[in-house]
Amino acid sequence: MNADKIKELVSQMTLEEKASLCSGADFWHTKEIKRLGIPSVMVSDGPHGLRKQDQKADHLGVNDSIKAVCFPAGCATAASFNRDLIKEMGETLGNECQAEKVSVILGPAVNIKRSPLCGRNFEYYSEDPLVATEMAGSLIEGIQNKNIGTSIKHFLANNQETRRMSSSSDIDERTLREIYLAAFEGAVCRQKPWTVMCSYNKINGTYAAENKTYLTDVLRNEWGFDGFVMSDWGAVNDRVRDLEAGLNLEMPSSSGINDKLITEAVRSGRLDEQILDRSCEEMLNIIYRAVENQDENAVFDLEKDHEKARKIAEETIVLLKNEDILPLNPGCKIAFIGKYAKKPRYQGGGSSHINSFKVTSALEAAGSLPGLVYAQGYDDARDEVLPALEEEAVRAAGSSDVAVIFAGLPDAFESEGFDRSHMRMPDCQNQLIEKIAAVQPNTVVVLHNGSPVEMPWISKVKGVIEAYLSGQAVGAAVTDILFGRVNPSAKLPETFPLKLEDNPSHLTYPGEGDRTAYAEGVYVGYRYYDKKKMDVLFPFGHGLSYTSFSYSDLTVDKEELDDTDTLKVSVKVTNTGKLEGKEIIQLYVGASSGKIQRPVKELRDFAKISLKPGETKEVTFTLGRRAFAYWNTTLKNWHVLTDDYDIMIGASSRDIRCQKSVRVNSTVRIPVIYTLDTTFGDVMENEKAAAAIHKFMEGSELFASPEEKGESDVAAEAISAEMQEAMMRYMPLRGMISFSGGAMTLDKLEELILEWNRDNINR
Amino acid sequence: MNADKIKELVSQMTLEEKASLCSGADFWHTKEIKRLGIPSVMVSDGPHGLRKQDQKADHLGVNDSIKAVCFPAGCATAASFNRDLIKEMGETLGNECQAEKVSVILGPAVNIKRSPLCGRNFEYYSEDPLVATEMAGSLIEGIQNKNIGTSIKHFLANNQETRRMSSSSDIDERTLREIYLAAFEGAVCRQKPWTVMCSYNKINGTYAAENKTYLTDVLRNEWGFDGFVMSDWGAVNDRVRDLEAGLNLEMPSSSGINDKLITEAVRSGRLDEQILDRSCEEMLNIIYRAVENQDENAVFDLEKDHEKARKIAEETIVLLKNEDILPLNPGCKIAFIGKYAKKPRYQGGGSSHINSFKVTSALEAAGSLPGLVYAQGYDDARDEVLPALEEEAVRAAGSSDVAVIFAGLPDAFESEGFDRSHMRMPDCQNQLIEKIAAVQPNTVVVLHNGSPVEMPWISKVKGVIEAYLSGQAVGAAVTDILFGRVNPSAKLPETFPLKLEDNPSHLTYPGEGDRTAYAEGVYVGYRYYDKKKMDVLFPFGHGLSYTSFSYSDLTVDKEELDDTDTLKVSVKVTNTGKLEGKEIIQLYVGASSGKIQRPVKELRDFAKISLKPGETKEVTFTLGRRAFAYWNTTLKNWHVLTDDYDIMIGASSRDIRCQKSVRVNSTVRIPVIYTLDTTFGDVMENEKAAAAIHKFMEGSELFASPEEKGESDVAAEAISAEMQEAMMRYMPLRGMISFSGGAMTLDKLEELILEWNRDNINR
Repeated sequence: MNADKIKELVSQMTLEEKASLCSGADFWHTKEIKRLGIPSVMVSDGPHGLRKQDQKADHLGVNDSIKAVCFPAGCATAASFNRDLIKEMGETLGNECQAEKVSVILGPAVNIKRSPLCGRNFEYYSEDPLVATEMAGSLIEGIQNKNIGTSIKHFLANNQETRRMSSSSDIDERTLREIYLAAFEGAVCRQKPWTVMCSYNKINGTYAAENKTYLTDVLRNEWGFDGFVMSDWGAVNDRVRDLEAGLNLEMPSSSGINDKLITEAVRSGRLDEQILDRSCEEMLNIIYRAVENQDENAVFDLEKDHEKARKIAEETIVLLKNEDILPLNPGCKIAFIGKYAKKPRYQGGGSSHINSFKVTSALEAAGSLPGLVYAQGYDDARDEVLPALEEEAVRAAGSSDVAVIFAGLPDAFESEGFDRSHMRMPDCQNQLIEKIAAVQPNTVVVLHNGSPVEMPWISKVKGVIEAYLSGQAVGAAVTDILFGRVNPSAKLPETFPLKLEDNPSHLTYPGEGDRTAYAEGVYVGYRYYDKKKMDVLFPFGHGLSYTSFSYSDLTVDKEELDDTDTLKVSVKVTNTGKLEGKEIIQLYVGASSGKIQRPVKELRDFAKISLKPGETKEVTFTLGRRAFAYWNTTLKNWHVLTDDYDIMIGASSRDIRCQKSVRVNSTVRIPVIYTLDTTFGDVMENEKAAAAIHKFMEGSELFASPEEKGESDVAAEAISAEMQEAMMRYMPLRGMISFSGGAMTLDKLEELILEWNRDNINR
Repeated sequence: MNADKIKELVSQMTLEEKASLCSGADFWHTKEIKRLGIPSVMVSDGPHGLRKQDQKADHLGVNDSIKAVCFPAGCATAASFNRDLIKEMGETLGNECQAEKVSVILGPAVNIKRSPLCGRNFEYYSEDPLVATEMAGSLIEGIQNKNIGTSIKHFLANNQETRRMSSSSDIDERTLREIYLAAFEGAVCRQKPWTVMCSYNKINGTYAAENKTYLTDVLRNEWGFDGFVMSDWGAVNDRVRDLEAGLNLEMPSSSGINDKLITEAVRSGRLDEQILDRSCEEMLNIIYRAVENQDENAVFDLEKDHEKARKIAEETIVLLKNEDILPLNPGCKIAFIGKYAKKPRYQGGGSSHINSFKVTSALEAAGSLPGLVYAQGYDDARDEVLPALEEEAVRAAGSSDVAVIFAGLPDAFESEGFDRSHMRMPDCQNQLIEKIAAVQPNTVVVLHNGSPVEMPWISKVKGVIEAYLSGQAVGAAVTDILFGRVNPSAKLPETFPLKLEDNPSHLTYPGEGDRTAYAEGVYVGYRYYDKKKMDVLFPFGHGLSYTSFSYSDLTVDKEELDDTDTLKVSVKVTNTGKLEGKEIIQLYVGASSGKIQRPVKELRDFAKISLKPGETKEVTFTLGRRAFAYWNTTLKNWHVLTDDYDIMIGASSRDIRCQKSVRVNSTVRIPVIYTLDTTFGDVMENEKAAAAIHKFMEGSELFASPEEKGESDVAAEAISAEMQEAMMRYMPLRGMISFSGGAMTLDKLEELILEWNRDNINR
């Protein structure tokens, strides 16, 4: 339905009807308006599978959902760094939605993994906003290709579960722009999700739901978002204020209470009815887009989609460590240890939880290998050592050639709704790994978790596979990697720190009372570990392969450019091993001068390519202004400082293979207003001012060197040349009055400043 | 002169006379008012020696000062942890001032050593506010015992030299109270300095000089300060606003310009003349205190005071490392290497620089030992290897039994006025140490520096002595320690991190433009390294002795107390070695529950005692409320949370010898106001509210467990009991409306909240 028709439709709606459109009919549907033929559409939890509830949902929406396919969670899909693959996953999901008559799937979730402790990290992509927004964009593109809407969430800065409905994320403007907004920005601007879900928390004291700055100014006016904004379930605070801020749809139903507040507000004049009209137009635009594009013939095959889930999982599993132990020889004696070998943990708890129609375990996938034995080792219902299980496992491991321990975080450690209290795996599992490694030198650990864990036993095992929460086919994918049928090709979309205390948010996470200071600023993840030159367990972007790659011939198409130009960067990558494999090539940019406080380097692009043994491919990246920019709070815009920038191509953030420097010149002038408090050092950058000051200085004893003044060595020792230079540089202009002994007056100085400012503005 | 007489005197002053009193006559004198017999008094730089200028000072005050005695600088005196010794130093300085007719000596400087890079760290005491304020208090007490005024400085939060005249220290309220104000508080409240010097910088955007909150509300109204506040030289910004804020005296002279602004402001009605009157009273009170207590008979003996400087230096030099190499046998072949053996660096550049009447070098102090040779090794004018000097030094070291390298930071690396750009010693010195350690296994390094340095060679030398900048007798003190004539007894008043990047301010120091975010909050120094569980080079409080001490019998006089009680803590310390020695006993307190974000432990008291071999002494500390308190921003006051507190007795911050837990109960209630946004978890702490909510819950399906609702296992898997519990805990009260399906209305809920608040207030 076109815009004019929608406008006309809204004009026919009564005030009550318009208000009714502003909240859900129940847990999962928008309200229909029969009189005008406005249909109800269904939204459904996601985003790594369909969680459609088949009965009337109760008030928490916890009834059984239909049987569906559980794909890898966000933590895992990000590790693929494969845009095409994630797009394909989106298309598969979109098709499932069409078949099930769901119009909008609630995801993807792009919140930054600020702390390893956030309970919902498993749903999120990365500590890096580029990875988050690129992965989200690919998923959105895929889903929306099937004419199903998405709801990028949780907007904004919802990076913890602790007190998530009342706490304020206190973040400076630059950090919001460079990290937390950036995770949404790329996907919103390029892939245009039909809806956005606003988060529970406050941002700098104002609820996301009532935050006009972000819901309207940034989202719609800056980024061109043209869909509707819905609340996270229960995130509405003050319905009228929220509507004014740009929140279209309250979810779930408010039982009519808030609709009534809206009609009252219009009647009393508190709320401009045009705001309500526009809100309805924005909603109807999407509702009709959904309805008009319903594919009545859509069907899907659970088994086929299970195979797709398996294919995706194969690219989401990261080989972290491999000391000549993997792949395994299926002919040898192998012990699969740990409950998760038989009953993998493959998804997290909460709104993203899928009722999987089947789950493939590694044990099942390995089939009837003659040398394979299994021992449960531990239970994950409670963190306690069960001696019989432990002994059995140690015996099994000791009498095999290789032990593969399937371990990780139990559901009770990691879920929507609450944060982890530490970064450890269960003690009983850590103890089991230590005991097995003590009897079996050939030990591999396969981890199932949505966020980093400490690995106190890391030096005692030969192999570690990070399986993340890779969906219902995880067991098949892990087995294929263990036995080399699949060459691992995923890399970490986050840093694994050595210990919890190392992480940048440690001093302030999860806040005090209802305030969480994001005191680390832009230094999230590798941006922090690099700046602090800290050792980490595994760096951002790290992941091994069963083959090897070499990098060469880094070229740039210009050595110097303006911030309005683009830069083409090419590099050749060769598979130098004996197996076909995929490599993730990472492009980082760093400003070399350190003129402003910035991370050492930031990921600005990445590519994933497949290479046959001996094959070489050239990869080309195109960098625009944003690759060099930081957020300038004076300009209220992105700004590129004139500077030398290092272009770094890496196999991980700590494995930079080639590097080149380019000069980027700014075409933007930052307005400067001089005042009495402006320092001499700053004002001397202005030529005219510098000339005037030099002239004044020549006549003043104040600025004579100790030698010129004929001072003794002792005086020169107290006030060195360096100190005198620094005192000048840091002195405010008003210092000319007090230190010039009357030679400079306030009036004279103010006149000079006025003149310099006039020049500045006219320049 | 008593208060009434001063009031009367002020009443006789003309407006111009009163204004004239508000700025200096020149660089070092207040203005006299001949007509009324009001004398001029002289102030003089300090505080580790007298820097009285003997001619008419020029505009930077860099003319030669009189020959004087240079005592150890702040960095060093703090390391003594000896209150009596520093008091004695103060008395000596006070006597020198009396003899030289100086009324106020400008110091001590208590600014927190936030970053190792601050150029002026050498003048400052510590990263810990207790050490800073205790040391300052002792010096003030000593000086003022001689009826000479002090000027505790630089008030407030002046922790960097970079852009010191224009930059804003952006610090949250709690951090200001617990760290930056606390460094002043103890000394101001207890030792009552005659004057306070306000700093150049801004605090949260407002110049210190015009900051009424700190200059008047905190300093005078809260802390009871009754002297006068003077500006740092050139720190006056807006003279009238500064006066209103509480700044009495502008220094140096403003050539009458600002005096005129004051008279104009009074005449125009912008400035209340009573403010000017009070300011004059405060100044005259101190001027007459100085004049009336002048000791016309005071004399001092340079040589005697030099011996005092030596005695003090002996307690300020820290033995950092000693692998069975110290003390040296004077009979063996010893090479003294390095320029600082002959020409020690013993003070820093800038306003504290003393024109020492003589300097004792280690080489001179060692005298004519038969086996002693000297090689210069390096020059410190420029950081470049001089091959001839280096080779000579390596030869000398190689052919001796022991090499002692005198190294450290040159003047150009460390001075008032600018910050260090890195934490390294000169490369040429580091290289020299490496080369010498390669040929001489018995190498000792003696360091001369005012702030931590990186020690890349630490594992290659057997001994390290931190001599800080210990004044003109440093060579004698170092030699006494090297040869065991003095048993070292100093400890580090600051952490030596392994590398610059480790330090807590690294991400934001020294700020961007004119804003410096103190983003690390209260986690300064060991408070940070402990919380982050980081390895350090040498921890806060570390220092070795030639004897050894054991700790035992930690006792507390109560196991449980109210925050209005005091706690007596005793511990026995025994000299278990063969030499007489002094030990610094450190008492730390830590809150064990972590209910609010706090350092792991904080220094709450310390004592230094002397013990003969085999001797045991009992040390007793008395802890009041503040030992357990943090600053509560709701109460705007110190608050003790009801909690268990660990009382830790340590030989350093990382060498806790005994520990005991006590329970402290709060007698203060923090006012709570419930709103619709208050979480269920918070409101359930109120019994009445909890009862009402329980009653409501019983009738509501919302709060039933999955079992009660007869849900399937799959639903229970998605929403675990943990998640449901957390969702409840973090849900705001307004959630009752949207999730209760109409059972709770806004009116009903607001009525309940009103009732609970009424109870709260009446409780």
